[in-house]
Amino acid sequence: MAHFPEKGDRAAWRVSVLTLFPEMFPGPLGVSLVGQALEAGLWSLAAIPLREFGVGRHRAVDDTPAGGGAGMVMRADVLAAAVDHVRQGEPDAPLIYLSPRGEPLTQALAAELAAGPGVMLLAGRFEGVDERVIAGRQMREVSIGDYVLSGGELAAMVLIDACVRLLPGVLGASDSLGEESFEDGLLEYPQYTKPREWEGRAIPEVLLSGDHKKVAEWRRSEAERITAERRPDLLKRR
Amino acid sequence: MAHFPEKGDRAAWRVSVLTLFPEMFPGPLGVSLVGQALEAGLWSLAAIPLREFGVGRHRAVDDTPAGGGAGMVMRADVLAAAVDHVRQGEPDAPLIYLSPRGEPLTQALAAELAAGPGVMLLAGRFEGVDERVIAGRQMREVSIGDYVLSGGELAAMVLIDACVRLLPGVLGASDSLGEESFEDGLLEYPQYTKPREWEGRAIPEVLLSGDHKKVAEWRRSEAERITAERRPDLLKRR
Repeated sequence: MAHFPEKGDRAAWRVSVLTLFPEMFPGPLGVSLVGQALEAGLWSLAAIPLREFGVGRHRAVDDTPAGGGAGMVMRADVLAAAVDHVRQGEPDAPLIYLSPRGEPLTQALAAELAAGPGVMLLAGRFEGVDERVIAGRQMREVSIGDYVLSGGELAAMVLIDACVRLLPGVLGASDSLGEESFEDGLLEYPQYTKPREWEGRAIPEVLLSGDHKKVAEWRRSEAERITAERRPDLLKRR
Repeated sequence: MAHFPEKGDRAAWRVSVLTLFPEMFPGPLGVSLVGQALEAGLWSLAAIPLREFGVGRHRAVDDTPAGGGAGMVMRADVLAAAVDHVRQGEPDAPLIYLSPRGEPLTQALAAELAAGPGVMLLAGRFEGVDERVIAGRQMREVSIGDYVLSGGELAAMVLIDACVRLLPGVLGASDSLGEESFEDGLLEYPQYTKPREWEGRAIPEVLLSGDHKKVAEWRRSEAERITAERRPDLLKRR
């Protein structure tokens, strides 16, 4: 069921998602840390049903592609009406269309968005949206990765999750934002916990030494080694 | 609620997800095309509650990191027990740990996985999993993008969605797999639909010409232009 925050209930970080499937929300975003933060009002989520902005007797939201081809394309007029409606209450939220053609979502972009007032997200379906509404409403196109999904809803959830966990107060004191993948442009070092030996595999000695400086050095060098091995492209971007 | 396929009900493509939050599934994967395919038995989904494999009176699944630091690490023995349990019924499914340190998910990898028997996915939480179980159970680490999520569940859903839509019979005849982003290593060309003019913006003439050859040429050149502008790295990889 779509979740609509009540009037006067203005969270610090506000999300609107324009979708044909509002019943998908909050879904996974209603569980665990991110869900607790939603309940606590640290962020808010409004799922806006695009169908309500459809045209004609059947509230059509899509039509066949100009020039022919398979599938359907979401109409510019329908999407613009939905965007303009949400815009009245959210004058400042950046408008993002989740699309494989967009700029890649990165940890830096998530941090940038988390520092703002929230986001207005368009989750597309079918073959995509009419190009004119992207320009006409100055949408920023963002991609969560180089693959195609059956719709933009999961991509919207990923973007939301990546941002919400960065909001103040969402992660508890026992959690860490400081040392994780993409800090300093590196992948994370390996982690170990009890038992000390498992199937003949021991925890590296240095981690049991109690020497904090040595532990920090080892972790740094492991993070550098793993990044160089797996993602040399990340090192080049630093 | 976790979905457990009944015995004898062996879908062609089978997914097991090891998670602390089985109630997240199927969630968004139960809706629309992918959800209809699940109901039709074109694929199956089992959410395996990791908590059931926890150790001790409190069924602990995690412990503090060796060497110190914030957060908790998921135990190797607990994860191995869960993997070994699922393995009995799924001897051939590749075992994938969703992690920002993994190889990037691409359309090519989704196609490779969709062509197999299914996948066994480990959705991590907290600071990650004990490194020894990754080696000890030969997990393939896969990343859906260069950002950190609050858990692996959304990443698992993204991987599943990207694969399921490629399974035979999932997309209807009216949908298209042939011309979309990452076909031929290109981003998709712009789409347009009715109305012919919207807010002073017209559909490009060529798309209304009825000349199929010219339409195809225009789309190809637009796809190349957009890819060169936005993602020159994709062109280099072709």
